[in-house]
Amino acid sequence: MSILIKNALLNGSRSDILIRANRIDRIDNNLTKDADEIIQADGMAILPSFANAHTHAAMTLMRGYADDMVLQEWLENYIWPLEAKLTQKDVYWGSKLACLEMIKSGTTLFNDMYWHFHGTARAAEEMGMRAFISGVLIDQFDKEKSDEMIKQNKQLFNESKEYSDRIIFSLGPHAIYTVSEKSLSWVAEFARENELLVHLHVSETKDEVDQCLENHNMRPVEYLDKIGILGPNLLSIHSIWLNNNEIRLLKENDVKLIHTPISNMKLGSGIFPIEKMLDRNLTVGIGTDGCSSNNNLDMLEEIKFASMLHKIHFRDTTIMSAEDTYKLATYNTKKLFNLNMGEIKEGYLADLILLDLNNESMIPNYNLISNIVYSAGKDCVDTTICDGKILMRNGKVEGEEEIKQKAREAAEDLIKR
Amino acid sequence: MSILIKNALLNGSRSDILIRANRIDRIDNNLTKDADEIIQADGMAILPSFANAHTHAAMTLMRGYADDMVLQEWLENYIWPLEAKLTQKDVYWGSKLACLEMIKSGTTLFNDMYWHFHGTARAAEEMGMRAFISGVLIDQFDKEKSDEMIKQNKQLFNESKEYSDRIIFSLGPHAIYTVSEKSLSWVAEFARENELLVHLHVSETKDEVDQCLENHNMRPVEYLDKIGILGPNLLSIHSIWLNNNEIRLLKENDVKLIHTPISNMKLGSGIFPIEKMLDRNLTVGIGTDGCSSNNNLDMLEEIKFASMLHKIHFRDTTIMSAEDTYKLATYNTKKLFNLNMGEIKEGYLADLILLDLNNESMIPNYNLISNIVYSAGKDCVDTTICDGKILMRNGKVEGEEEIKQKAREAAEDLIKR
Repeated sequence: MSILIKNALLNGSRSDILIRANRIDRIDNNLTKDADEIIQADGMAILPSFANAHTHAAMTLMRGYADDMVLQEWLENYIWPLEAKLTQKDVYWGSKLACLEMIKSGTTLFNDMYWHFHGTARAAEEMGMRAFISGVLIDQFDKEKSDEMIKQNKQLFNESKEYSDRIIFSLGPHAIYTVSEKSLSWVAEFARENELLVHLHVSETKDEVDQCLENHNMRPVEYLDKIGILGPNLLSIHSIWLNNNEIRLLKENDVKLIHTPISNMKLGSGIFPIEKMLDRNLTVGIGTDGCSSNNNLDMLEEIKFASMLHKIHFRDTTIMSAEDTYKLATYNTKKLFNLNMGEIKEGYLADLILLDLNNESMIPNYNLISNIVYSAGKDCVDTTICDGKILMRNGKVEGEEEIKQKAREAAEDLIKR
Repeated sequence: MSILIKNALLNGSRSDILIRANRIDRIDNNLTKDADEIIQADGMAILPSFANAHTHAAMTLMRGYADDMVLQEWLENYIWPLEAKLTQKDVYWGSKLACLEMIKSGTTLFNDMYWHFHGTARAAEEMGMRAFISGVLIDQFDKEKSDEMIKQNKQLFNESKEYSDRIIFSLGPHAIYTVSEKSLSWVAEFARENELLVHLHVSETKDEVDQCLENHNMRPVEYLDKIGILGPNLLSIHSIWLNNNEIRLLKENDVKLIHTPISNMKLGSGIFPIEKMLDRNLTVGIGTDGCSSNNNLDMLEEIKFASMLHKIHFRDTTIMSAEDTYKLATYNTKKLFNLNMGEIKEGYLADLILLDLNNESMIPNYNLISNIVYSAGKDCVDTTICDGKILMRNGKVEGEEEIKQKAREAAEDLIKR
């Protein structure tokens, strides 16, 4: 299978891009038309697709179910009771809706943590997306529960090998306040042995820090360091309430940080210390979080929030420029997920989008990256390609009507159950 | 001319809505099909269109031209030199692009301040939008310039009567640091005599307050009170740096406040004191500002920012709920602009939109207003109607290709000039 993209705007000039199998094979001025599929991309820009570095994909089913509430009421009376009723089939349809939403808004990779692993894995597999998928590992400091979760994770790891290379198993210990030291130690070891990523919520709220200080007489990242889980394979989500010593530990261990601006704002969690992270050259990615704390999966919206949040926080117009912000959601994918992607470059994975330069929000085009970060909406995404396969063309995804209908039914059924 | 909208979701149930001339004539369960045009709105929700309460529409031509800069450098080296070269034709095409963008994102009313009044007025007239349009009144404390601006504004007021009822002349003194007391006094009087709205930037930056204290030994709103310009016809834009006495003065005079969250964030201006305003029952609207400080005119995006900004600022998940935020951009239109609009209600102006409930970001539909504020993108807007005329249907606006082409050309020509 090969795709030839003709005459797309790439770094300011018109280029042809040849995709062979799942890679960008050649980029040149005038490639001849010897491809299985040809895309005339006049009036379009070619760009790397986005990586959504923190999701709970199936939570699309809870979009708008409960908002604007105090955290504990929201979790205890709304989210957790609904989650307890979820079946693998619900998660499958919820994740399919999530994949549809992401494809439509130019995302081809997501890093997920949720219940019913196979529901999400099957959805991502069928939708053609690239996904790092972990279950939620929670033991509530119960030894038996810990043993059970470890057994389950080992089993899921083995079962995950049945999927294509696009579906990558990772480990998802939820947070230090829900997972025992024993389980976290196992995660650290198992991840190292099997070269897996670890997906962990860290210091999302000040309460988490206070509780950790009380229980362990140290701060969360210091505690994680003691356990030995800090490393280049750790994706530390949220990571708001950190002191300089913790940031030093994160840097020393090459931990990756995932910033979730909209979720942090909607839940009033706090401000991710982006300036310190970038000053110290840590690798930062961007994620939307789940649909009950956002409430969508649109990375174009997320990067605008990422820029604006820090500009107002520091009262500094020059921080988080369009260019700097854009890189976090594209260029940084390579380091975050250890995959050759995040740029339009020969040899890189063919995960990319075509953006319609004739959309009203992209005119004029003095500065494409500024337009993408500060102006574009998802209706600017014309074509989405993942792993060398076309997932969306002219804004249409195959089978989208069925997905929407089935996800709607699953949600309606879920709250009646 | 009459339009019958069949089977649209209105306040949770299916309704038929009959539009006659420019009004919503009847709302009922099963209206017979005796209309010039029938819209089958199954799978759609009917809602009031948005009012964008602060724009510099033609600045679409400067979208992405200069970002992420220190305020003075940005204004002096980029924006002002470009503005000095603008012709009425540029403003016409820039405003047409702005109207297109607003129609596509569900806005039918905008409140504008810019150079070349007739460029904007003609664009809004032709595009079928409702617009309060003021010139920029700046005299730089020069008596001759003041006389000239007053003469020009009187003339524009007379000329504006040639347009339809949708185009409403207002007065646009720029700010207290660019307009003399003499001109501001004239504005106050002329507005009262002729029942005009006044569009004024107030206390956008702390510098403005400091300078006012130095020059007048009082704060900006106190100074405006002394001049006698505070009143129910004053739309006070930005209005960030206010103390409680100023808020009391604004309330006593029933001044309307316009909140521009994205612009305030992008320019690092500060945080609009929304809680105090709503606690004291002042009337607040929402605006996007111009495209060089946003960089789009999408009210769906703007209301999400409005909610998120204050949730994170106060670390309070319950402030600026979806419902409360939504009202500022719709329901409040009636009070802000003294027009019967902002709700779907018999006798009200037929300024409304149909939203596609089958868009992936609107599924499931537990809470429509939550979905609109927190999830929807402009691709959810299917139909836009203003003053009883259909401006967009199935996401398409008549003549949009020409507008985009001409606006692009105007922008390209402008920076070469």
